[in-house]
Amino acid sequence: MLIVMKHNATEAQIGSVVDVIKEMGYGARPIPGEQRTAVGLIGNDGQVDSARLQGLEGVLEVIPVTHPYKQVSREWREENTVISLENGTTIGGDEIVIMAGPCAVEGEAQILGIAHELREMGATVLRGGAFKPRSSPYSFQGLGLEGLHFLAKAREETGLAIVTEALDPDGADLVAEYADIIQIGARNMQNYPLLRRAGQTGKPILLKRGLSATIDELLLAAEYILAEGNDDVILCERGIRSFDQHTRNLLDLAAIPVVKALSHLPIIADPSHGTGLRAKVTPMGRAAIAAGADGLIVEVHPDPPHAMSDGAQSLYPAQFGEMMEQIRVIAKAIGRDVTRPLSGVVAR
Amino acid sequence: MLIVMKHNATEAQIGSVVDVIKEMGYGARPIPGEQRTAVGLIGNDGQVDSARLQGLEGVLEVIPVTHPYKQVSREWREENTVISLENGTTIGGDEIVIMAGPCAVEGEAQILGIAHELREMGATVLRGGAFKPRSSPYSFQGLGLEGLHFLAKAREETGLAIVTEALDPDGADLVAEYADIIQIGARNMQNYPLLRRAGQTGKPILLKRGLSATIDELLLAAEYILAEGNDDVILCERGIRSFDQHTRNLLDLAAIPVVKALSHLPIIADPSHGTGLRAKVTPMGRAAIAAGADGLIVEVHPDPPHAMSDGAQSLYPAQFGEMMEQIRVIAKAIGRDVTRPLSGVVAR
Amino acid sequence: MLIVMKHNATEAQIGSVVDVIKEMGYGARPIPGEQRTAVGLIGNDGQVDSARLQGLEGVLEVIPVTHPYKQVSREWREENTVISLENGTTIGGDEIVIMAGPCAVEGEAQILGIAHELREMGATVLRGGAFKPRSSPYSFQGLGLEGLHFLAKAREETGLAIVTEALDPDGADLVAEYADIIQIGARNMQNYPLLRRAGQTGKPILLKRGLSATIDELLLAAEYILAEGNDDVILCERGIRSFDQHTRNLLDLAAIPVVKALSHLPIIADPSHGTGLRAKVTPMGRAAIAAGADGLIVEVHPDPPHAMSDGAQSLYPAQFGEMMEQIRVIAKAIGRDVTRPLSGVVAR
Amino acid sequence: MLIVMKHNATEAQIGSVVDVIKEMGYGARPIPGEQRTAVGLIGNDGQVDSARLQGLEGVLEVIPVTHPYKQVSREWREENTVISLENGTTIGGDEIVIMAGPCAVEGEAQILGIAHELREMGATVLRGGAFKPRSSPYSFQGLGLEGLHFLAKAREETGLAIVTEALDPDGADLVAEYADIIQIGARNMQNYPLLRRAGQTGKPILLKRGLSATIDELLLAAEYILAEGNDDVILCERGIRSFDQHTRNLLDLAAIPVVKALSHLPIIADPSHGTGLRAKVTPMGRAAIAAGADGLIVEVHPDPPHAMSDGAQSLYPAQFGEMMEQIRVIAKAIGRDVTRPLSGVVAR
Repeated sequence: MLIVMKHNATEAQIGSVVDVIKEMGYGARPIPGEQRTAVGLIGNDGQVDSARLQGLEGVLEVIPVTHPYKQVSREWREENTVISLENGTTIGGDEIVIMAGPCAVEGEAQILGIAHELREMGATVLRGGAFKPRSSPYSFQGLGLEGLHFLAKAREETGLAIVTEALDPDGADLVAEYADIIQIGARNMQNYPLLRRAGQTGKPILLKRGLSATIDELLLAAEYILAEGNDDVILCERGIRSFDQHTRNLLDLAAIPVVKALSHLPIIADPSHGTGLRAKVTPMGRAAIAAGADGLIVEVHPDPPHAMSDGAQSLYPAQFGEMMEQIRVIAKAIGRDVTRPLSGVVAR
Repeated sequence: MLIVMKHNATEAQIGSVVDVIKEMGYGARPIPGEQRTAVGLIGNDGQVDSARLQGLEGVLEVIPVTHPYKQVSREWREENTVISLENGTTIGGDEIVIMAGPCAVEGEAQILGIAHELREMGATVLRGGAFKPRSSPYSFQGLGLEGLHFLAKAREETGLAIVTEALDPDGADLVAEYADIIQIGARNMQNYPLLRRAGQTGKPILLKRGLSATIDELLLAAEYILAEGNDDVILCERGIRSFDQHTRNLLDLAAIPVVKALSHLPIIADPSHGTGLRAKVTPMGRAAIAAGADGLIVEVHPDPPHAMSDGAQSLYPAQFGEMMEQIRVIAKAIGRDVTRPLSGVVAR
Repeated sequence: MLIVMKHNATEAQIGSVVDVIKEMGYGARPIPGEQRTAVGLIGNDGQVDSARLQGLEGVLEVIPVTHPYKQVSREWREENTVISLENGTTIGGDEIVIMAGPCAVEGEAQILGIAHELREMGATVLRGGAFKPRSSPYSFQGLGLEGLHFLAKAREETGLAIVTEALDPDGADLVAEYADIIQIGARNMQNYPLLRRAGQTGKPILLKRGLSATIDELLLAAEYILAEGNDDVILCERGIRSFDQHTRNLLDLAAIPVVKALSHLPIIADPSHGTGLRAKVTPMGRAAIAAGADGLIVEVHPDPPHAMSDGAQSLYPAQFGEMMEQIRVIAKAIGRDVTRPLSGVVAR
Repeated sequence: MLIVMKHNATEAQIGSVVDVIKEMGYGARPIPGEQRTAVGLIGNDGQVDSARLQGLEGVLEVIPVTHPYKQVSREWREENTVISLENGTTIGGDEIVIMAGPCAVEGEAQILGIAHELREMGATVLRGGAFKPRSSPYSFQGLGLEGLHFLAKAREETGLAIVTEALDPDGADLVAEYADIIQIGARNMQNYPLLRRAGQTGKPILLKRGLSATIDELLLAAEYILAEGNDDVILCERGIRSFDQHTRNLLDLAAIPVVKALSHLPIIADPSHGTGLRAKVTPMGRAAIAAGADGLIVEVHPDPPHAMSDGAQSLYPAQFGEMMEQIRVIAKAIGRDVTRPLSGVVAR
């Protein structure tokens, strides 16, 4: 950490910065420059609270040099974290994982039907919300526990792994009983009690980036889970808030290579929420793979016009099938492969 | 709601939009135009899920005409909601409320000392975090229950009302036992289980705008609380995320007159988090009052350089006193008054 | 255009909206709803100034239904605009164009050397700035006319087409004498005198999206050029401003399929300015092609550490070569091809 | 400037960073830390191009320590720049300047009529566009030279100073003949040929912040004008782009105290473009003054519903009068005064 002094800072002010740093338990090294002096804070482990220094007299600004996160960083662990699910799917290695399914579990027939279709087309993880966070209190909020039962049945029948969202700490325990992966939604990325409890379940966690979360904040949220002793975190870029209204969110694909350089954790993309528009899901799904994503999570519904939520961004099954074919080619262009289908058959 | 068709939409496509609307239980009225046809959806109460219509063949875009919230809107209730606290402070009427205190409760002496000072200078509500949401799992997380005890003692001694944050549903019940106002922080604005449980306590809720929440989303989050039968919601503008790095957040003061026009709920401003910089707190606090805010919530610390969190944005008590004097004049310029101090003495 | 009235708007207010619409020369059709009345404005050609209606008494909001641009829209012309350069390169058809070169022309040897290399690796258009817009008045501003001469020589020697930037109206005329494509930079996207003069030269124009331009504003800027009778506009997504600081800009790849649906004009991507970081250029270049871009414009420098500008985002020639190979495969995955190299040899 | 090395950077890589710095003509000082080494670049004047260093092997990031601007900074000149107009108005001193008038000059009677009204209510500078930059090529583009003549006549009759916009370099010369202040609009903030030519006229320049310009970029744009030997620059906050659609732009009032701390130049606010909505202009105008702005520029139209542009954000003259009264009180609360009216009469 570097504390930059104003050009007219007095010796006393510089001395007082040095004193506060020492009081905080670190080393201080003044670096006189032509225009101004800076004071280097030495010996910290990346978790210094800069606020105390920022307000001192004569301080122009405080510049963090080390990142504030620790266990999630590639400097902490060089090799990629690879997460293995019971059905053989791995996430974060050479293979690209495809998670797919409807926005919400709407009934047993719906989820079983689509699960079988998706399995044939090569998805190995089934998504579907049982507990739905909705902007309006009057919107459909999910089937709850019943939805979890239907998901469990779909897994039993198809072998697909299950990813579904938990909304609060108690919910995390419940979801952990039924799912292979617990999803933490974008709105809850900084819901720390939820992150902690989800981490404690020991299940893999799919952590979605908040709508206006910086990449550092996403990594710090993941750090909450790793701090509970759970290293199996899958990050997910799902679009951030921006000013253009043509798409629901702005899918920040550059976050993928940025995260891969900073962290050993896998990162996938959600082109459905990332665009909000069916016609843009396939191009952005392809683009995410080309950018180096470790996988996709995609909304597919057997009958989008009658979906109870997010119909406008859900692919028809046939569209999903076409996207899978294109993705297989793109994966090869960068030396990777889409996870081998559970059906043992690669479509076409 | 208006469903705009593509200029080359077929009669069959228009018919199918009409059919889906009727199936959803609403009326449909096609409006042929020179370039394209639009279909009006009639008879909805503002909670239509547009997603289903958005993805239909031939649809160019779906334009919501009514707002998605209900009880929070000024069309639902014309007159301002005025919230009365036990110590006589009212929020949302002619008077301007000033809430002040340290970021975190750090100990008994700290909170009691500053509470007495703030009371003398005219604050009537004391802020102070017992449970702190922190970006890093390694930062100070608050004193917890002990902090609540210290706050209760400060209230007993000074008569100041207490506002403090709850982080999860169980915490809401706990905070409700000690506080006059339960704060929902910006990170939790869309934490729906927390909003519901906080609403059920019947206590006034201070709901902070999320970092990238639109004004409609803020109002919808408040709607979750009103839907539990609790009308006592105080909204709070506390800065949104933007691209300039000179301030921690971007305080969106125009949100104040915008919210006052859309909703009957009171709205206050937090110039401390809204800027992150001590030297900008006073100008932005003044500006918020000039813009029509119903009050301020301000971080004041007896010794900012030694604060355990947010020291850089905390005012010194003397600075707070000066701001209070300026605010009293500004309030009068727009026909309002700062709440009468509990000490019975108006500074100057 | 739809003028939505407040729910308590009077008949007189509705009548006055109808009157103003008629006075503006359009038709007006009131649409009574359950909660409020809306008035449809009929017969406009997309260029109505809504400001006048927005401020009328009783008006809640004005919702544009038709887009404000005309000649650039796909409704105006269904088939893709395909631009042909003298060296046989086409832009906007099935082929994907690759434009590459240094940020700035720094000298004759530099530009000739890199031009030959790029030609061998398959680029068919050479980029290089002779006039450089720089944030600081003290930075290197380009070689000017001399730079144009060096570019012309590079074209003569290699057959590569030339794209280079014009900064003001007189400069547009000058650049038109030397270049095959006149570039309008992001900072000048709404510099209307420049757009007009560039349009009048009749040369193809590469129009870069402004840092905070909406897609509609980008299309409206292009409309300025088409309004001068020049249809040969190539749009370019080059990153927009956002809040994360890990990349210089945020490359909005979803803009590509969005623009392709709204307009017949070709759109390419600039992954160099779009990320600002060499290591992210190749993944984002691949992603742009996968998203459906009609081409790329990429900074390549023979010796990036000694570049006079933008060295940090310039590829080494060898990196560019590798990206080209990957892009060829990705192009095929979506049924397209990279433009055939001028050298007649497809690398590998 | 601080060049932070990766934690596993080799001695050779550090050495090569030192070499490049020396080659660039500066001093280099390696600062070994616990986790990584940083290299300080010493002896620069704030205009170092970091790009060259950013891309070197082993470099994690490059952190600028000194600001990139020079003459505009408060470190260059401590006391406020105060600009004096011929009619006695000063800008940047204790007095608060009020500029007002219609968006566009629409005719002689319109501009003369409103000028007299505004003078009576206390404005001392008249605004009005003769050359209008419009998003659409089909919108009204201003009266041009005729508009300048009308403005000149208004000055002659009322004594009000004139501020009006120039769109291109030749236009700057023309406007300089008629106006007291040349306005550079938000879209042209980084139109460097225009900034230079406007600077050369020697006239005071009103420089509006671009829609997504950082504060540093605004100051750098001003630096272009000071670099021409013209110190009379008035900065203007007029709203930046954000994600909420309730207002046209987001007025960033915190920019005012931030700029006042960084620079000696005056800064005013434009609540009309900053909100785009008549009903929000007065609250935000008041807030700007409370935040410390040196003045306002406000759109006032004799008959907003019939304005040829920006009617929705134009105040009625009576509303402007009320705002003036409130502003006078607010100015006093912070020890300032609104400029004495030319009419010699303070309203009320």
